[in-house]
Amino acid sequence: MIQYNLLFQFCFEVFRKIGCSTTDAELASRVLISADLRGIDSHGVARLSGYVRLWEAERINPTPNIQVVHETPSTAVIDGDAGLGLVVAPAAMEIAMEKARTAGTGWVAIRNSNHFGIAGYHAMMALQHDMIGMAMTNASPLVAPTFSSERMLGTNPIAVAIPAKEEPPFVADFATTTAANGKMEILQRNDEQAPEGWVQDKNGNPSTNPYAVKEGGALLPLGGDRIHGSHKGYCLGAIVDIFSAVFSGANYGPWAPPFVSFLSPPDDPVGEGLGHFLGAMRIDAFRPAEEFKQNMDTWIKRFRSAKPVNDNQKVLIPGDPEREEEARRKTEGIPVNPKVYQDLLGLKEKFDLKALF
Amino acid sequence: MIQYNLLFQFCFEVFRKIGCSTTDAELASRVLISADLRGIDSHGVARLSGYVRLWEAERINPTPNIQVVHETPSTAVIDGDAGLGLVVAPAAMEIAMEKARTAGTGWVAIRNSNHFGIAGYHAMMALQHDMIGMAMTNASPLVAPTFSSERMLGTNPIAVAIPAKEEPPFVADFATTTAANGKMEILQRNDEQAPEGWVQDKNGNPSTNPYAVKEGGALLPLGGDRIHGSHKGYCLGAIVDIFSAVFSGANYGPWAPPFVSFLSPPDDPVGEGLGHFLGAMRIDAFRPAEEFKQNMDTWIKRFRSAKPVNDNQKVLIPGDPEREEEARRKTEGIPVNPKVYQDLLGLKEKFDLKALF
Repeated sequence: MIQYNLLFQFCFEVFRKIGCSTTDAELASRVLISADLRGIDSHGVARLSGYVRLWEAERINPTPNIQVVHETPSTAVIDGDAGLGLVVAPAAMEIAMEKARTAGTGWVAIRNSNHFGIAGYHAMMALQHDMIGMAMTNASPLVAPTFSSERMLGTNPIAVAIPAKEEPPFVADFATTTAANGKMEILQRNDEQAPEGWVQDKNGNPSTNPYAVKEGGALLPLGGDRIHGSHKGYCLGAIVDIFSAVFSGANYGPWAPPFVSFLSPPDDPVGEGLGHFLGAMRIDAFRPAEEFKQNMDTWIKRFRSAKPVNDNQKVLIPGDPEREEEARRKTEGIPVNPKVYQDLLGLKEKFDLKALF
Repeated sequence: MIQYNLLFQFCFEVFRKIGCSTTDAELASRVLISADLRGIDSHGVARLSGYVRLWEAERINPTPNIQVVHETPSTAVIDGDAGLGLVVAPAAMEIAMEKARTAGTGWVAIRNSNHFGIAGYHAMMALQHDMIGMAMTNASPLVAPTFSSERMLGTNPIAVAIPAKEEPPFVADFATTTAANGKMEILQRNDEQAPEGWVQDKNGNPSTNPYAVKEGGALLPLGGDRIHGSHKGYCLGAIVDIFSAVFSGANYGPWAPPFVSFLSPPDDPVGEGLGHFLGAMRIDAFRPAEEFKQNMDTWIKRFRSAKPVNDNQKVLIPGDPEREEEARRKTEGIPVNPKVYQDLLGLKEKFDLKALF
């Protein structure tokens, strides 16, 4: 267990060491650790050393000049200048919300960026402004489309955050695959097999091997196989890819640059860096905010009281588990697994940081 | 087999008989039969008598006064005045595209509407204008959220249509359930069991009974069960419900009015009628249209040539099967199953129509 403040300070120091400004290092740390707080351990400090290695490979620019390259009243395209997605995406979301203030909605496509942490963070930025926030991103290709044995798409997450009045907000944030890659790592650590429908081997055959992806196989689109609707998961992943990267001029599909520094990006790029797509919709562009939020309270209460199959497992509202985890970890601290802890100690040594934990 | 023109003329006459104007009857027929043309038989003429029964129950207004009740530069809320969704939705999509022309994007939430046919029709309206089209709708509750035995959501489809240059467009159009309700009817006709993950019985237990939904059970969200990501399908269905109905002031969740006339809408409505949510994004609000469409050609070609698992089943681009079906049925005619044919003969007699087939 590491207390949030200590972990934050550590990340901040690391981002400062790779050359980020104080403001950017603070922002990047906050976005990164929001994943750990919300229990999405795969996207938090576990990735810190990965960002550092990408910086060492000169694939991350710590002082990006983030620029709007095209705009209309409700849209903008942003060049992230190879900056940290953790910094580029919040800047882009501010622009989306600014557009929404005047045009009702704002939609921003971002190119030349890098992994942006959890999609939910960016979508949730809208909540305090009585807006609905949306965030999606393409990612390193690990997912095979239905009928294919080739990795063509990332786990391409979608997040949608919707405010309520007295109830906590509705926050959906999910990979468009049956299971995210982080789940495979958990199986490997526990020496367990994967459920059917999560992965296939390198020839495209169904597999329960938790190392299948590492051995050339692929994650499967939500649905798992054709009969269970994997073509719908493939559609979702494809839509995220096109909105994030074809709209913006980033690399799409199998051209999306890998997150790991030991794999080089394709030498025939079709765009620049990774792409994101963010949206903000002002609630009162549709309906008075109070009225909408009261109805969201009704929606949430009704779904929460839907008849459960088992009395000991109530129906959840999207965002419930993450919010509860966040409350717990804010007080109790963040569990850091031994391998990640070693990683952090390595960074501490590399950058000659003061002992923080 | 019935030729398209004959079927169109028949629907047109029926819509005229229930009081639609010539223009509306033409439009409603075109939208309705676009489903049959594209091979989505459950949403086409099979539903014609259902619309008529709703009209008889005075739940469909054949001469609606479709009005914009609120707007901003990029948004509008429309009251469909209990009109046919087949007519209300195209009118709303025109408004979304008009907004997009000036603001870059246009987003329209619709209340007080009825079933709008296939979502894909409305999304595809944007293609010829070099826009991306989106359409979603809520629907009669048949789907249980993860962990619940209660029907709380409709099959809530999402459609996204994206133009390319030389390649045909990318058109995704899918229910946010593992399988649509129409699939259950096919199983019933063929006396077959449902695959696991499609339905549950009225107690929420997994079922392969093709009559499970009729017997008080529920369709399952995309993913099927928790371990295969049904909470993601539930998120998607919920987002469609909230965008379509909470934004617009329509009935949401279990309050969505049933399509069948023998079930009355809930007597404690939370809004008016069904809701839809439509969007149009001008491509050049992001990037020159030619450049975007060339990149879409590259995207489509690359995905179509992704390594197949079996050489006899290539990777498909969303919209491929429906487009091929449409080309076939336009020339060969539309197969109408015996039960639906009897239904149409009933309408022919009811309205004393000339022999059309």
